[in-house]
Amino acid sequence: MIKIGICGLGTVGQSSLEHIIKFKNEIRSNVNVDFEVSHVADLAIESKKLTNHNIIATNNAMDLVKDPEISIIIELIGGTTAALEIITESLKNKKHVITANKALIAEHGNEIFKLARESNSFFGFEASVAGAIPIVKVLTQSMSNEKIFSISGIINGTCNYVLDQMSNKKINFETALKDAQKLGYAEADPSFDIGGNDAAHKISILSSLAYKIGLPYKETYIEGIKNITPMDIKFADELGYTIKHIGVTRELDKLIECRVHPTLVPKNNILSQVHNVMNAILVKGERFGTSMFYGHGAGGDATASAIVANLVEAINFSQEIDKSNLKISHSIGTLNRKIKNIEQVESSFYLRIHAKDVPGVMAEITNILANEKISIEAVSQHEPEETDSLIPIVMITNSVPGLCINKAIDKIQLLKNVDDKVNSIRVLKLNEK
Amino acid sequence: MIKIGICGLGTVGQSSLEHIIKFKNEIRSNVNVDFEVSHVADLAIESKKLTNHNIIATNNAMDLVKDPEISIIIELIGGTTAALEIITESLKNKKHVITANKALIAEHGNEIFKLARESNSFFGFEASVAGAIPIVKVLTQSMSNEKIFSISGIINGTCNYVLDQMSNKKINFETALKDAQKLGYAEADPSFDIGGNDAAHKISILSSLAYKIGLPYKETYIEGIKNITPMDIKFADELGYTIKHIGVTRELDKLIECRVHPTLVPKNNILSQVHNVMNAILVKGERFGTSMFYGHGAGGDATASAIVANLVEAINFSQEIDKSNLKISHSIGTLNRKIKNIEQVESSFYLRIHAKDVPGVMAEITNILANEKISIEAVSQHEPEETDSLIPIVMITNSVPGLCINKAIDKIQLLKNVDDKVNSIRVLKLNEK
Repeated sequence: MIKIGICGLGTVGQSSLEHIIKFKNEIRSNVNVDFEVSHVADLAIESKKLTNHNIIATNNAMDLVKDPEISIIIELIGGTTAALEIITESLKNKKHVITANKALIAEHGNEIFKLARESNSFFGFEASVAGAIPIVKVLTQSMSNEKIFSISGIINGTCNYVLDQMSNKKINFETALKDAQKLGYAEADPSFDIGGNDAAHKISILSSLAYKIGLPYKETYIEGIKNITPMDIKFADELGYTIKHIGVTRELDKLIECRVHPTLVPKNNILSQVHNVMNAILVKGERFGTSMFYGHGAGGDATASAIVANLVEAINFSQEIDKSNLKISHSIGTLNRKIKNIEQVESSFYLRIHAKDVPGVMAEITNILANEKISIEAVSQHEPEETDSLIPIVMITNSVPGLCINKAIDKIQLLKNVDDKVNSIRVLKLNEK
Repeated sequence: MIKIGICGLGTVGQSSLEHIIKFKNEIRSNVNVDFEVSHVADLAIESKKLTNHNIIATNNAMDLVKDPEISIIIELIGGTTAALEIITESLKNKKHVITANKALIAEHGNEIFKLARESNSFFGFEASVAGAIPIVKVLTQSMSNEKIFSISGIINGTCNYVLDQMSNKKINFETALKDAQKLGYAEADPSFDIGGNDAAHKISILSSLAYKIGLPYKETYIEGIKNITPMDIKFADELGYTIKHIGVTRELDKLIECRVHPTLVPKNNILSQVHNVMNAILVKGERFGTSMFYGHGAGGDATASAIVANLVEAINFSQEIDKSNLKISHSIGTLNRKIKNIEQVESSFYLRIHAKDVPGVMAEITNILANEKISIEAVSQHEPEETDSLIPIVMITNSVPGLCINKAIDKIQLLKNVDDKVNSIRVLKLNEK
């Protein structure tokens, strides 16, 4: 009998417990030994309803970590303090660990994977990236036998919902965010999602898995969505693009890109068709070509589904049926690759410039771009929003390093007849690797 | 040293060999033992160029099957005669087997899985359904711990390409098919793809995996795309749908549906955004919700990528690192479920009826539908294509069994003022499980 302890009975913890009980038969058919959730811990354990009275409940998660009877710890507390102690102590105690804690892995992954390696323990974190999408399994197993060119993912449901609503309802960022909060798709303090940090945690994990590097979170470029305006969405739409918040990791000439930011996605790229709070991850490889995985990125049941998939693996690991999980902790950090500074990262750019309607201003702008060796692939000049106001000029450039664009923007912003706030957004090209 | 034999050096065989050689380091990092392709067999082996002169080449695949040194056989001959012998004899000889042969599994799967079970051998067939999409792994591992409501897949690239071209270029079936043949997306004799048999093989395999039933190929309802007209595509588009060729398997009240046919897919369902020859499989589950997996369904490199993913599993299976593959052969056929006759299968229907522009004809049609308890959710009457010709009337019904629709169509076709060819197409509803 395998005994399992769940630390943290929030939405995901409760749903995991419910899943394990409701689908006991299905899970049992995937393992060769009986199992049960024997212990649960939650700081507010008194307020939790437990229908199964055989489960031992405590408000101290470390009780579970120290209990020699428990062989699998499911950490669903979140955060990077208590959770770190629970996970590191569990691994030191040779327990198998499952977590949904992306922040913890992104920020302390190198230490955690080292411990998992040393203790020969199972460490499962499928739920930490894109909830029910089995991207960890797919990347480390199905796709790990060739060169991965790039991963581009819609990995924050809040950002996707807000941008999708801005696009569909032609509303501004603040209104869309309020709608999202009303529906429970954004937190009361949404800064972590909207600011891009959550997506940055996830893309760091994917980058480590794809390229076998240590967790690159500290070097990940992070930009959120709060500067996206309805005007950008409208102009992008006219040029054939949808604005999405995308996490990208890519290897080019042994240098790694790892970044999250708003991105213009061509409408004929399937990522542009990912709506509401859904997540999707597009992977390009040398042999399999282009694949995309779509599903629920959050929510109790979807996340619990990934936790339970890991649970089956952990049980089979403990029974010597499937030891393949070890490969992950043994491979992360084995390669040493430089992470590109965002100014080195090349892409096409969307530029929105507001200028006075006077002769010569377009010539001034295009001269500055030409001097930085930036060519213009598409340009459109729009009617001013009000009479006598500045005229919006929108451009798509060729693929150039961020530094070139920044230099050009600095110069354009100094022009007498141009507003000093030029907006730039990176563009995902359909044919780039 | 694990020795591998490849039977069949067509596109996929050549590409698999190339993949194994080119990405030897990546593959080697996923296994704990050295390996090599030691033997290849092809009926026309003389015409094949082998750059590695250490590989033993023969035109008799059974030489490989009988060779005690070879522990893994990769069958890429195709067909259901020689391939059946190769696979069954390999399993009897306790070799591990990998194949891309969907026809063989759909038609002889029960026998093959029984042999794999009895010989405790690895049997890998990831490449048999949707090429590079790791749907076999995902269904049998990540998603096997809960109730799968349904699987709906675009699993034949030829059909998808032809329908997509008909839609984009407003051309008819014959022209689109000729274009597909020119580009190599359709065979010289395309009947197997266009007629739905290939998709039926694949959906049968997915149905077995999801519902643990024996291969339901013989009871699978098969309908191809040759009766779809540009008019249907246009009318569907106006009603908010795209016509796709979809394979569906679904469990409802312990009865299984297994069918392939043209389907109206709502434009806000992500399946409708799968273009060209791409494949995509949408899975609905009780806990994970809706997931979708998209990628290349065919082509040498994409298929080889799945073969190589299986190869790593087979090597790890042989080294006792990952025995989870056994679960598949042990689970298929363990449940006994009736497959619904297509006339029992409920769905919404699209009906296209051509009628004379005379008073009362609409009343006659709607009375017939009402008598069969079919209600109309949307209706549109179009201008006749030429003066005095029949008027097309298009309807979307509520969800009813196929039998009701067939009865109604029989009666409508007998009406004096109605053309005797009523076209019906099933509709995939967004909110159905």
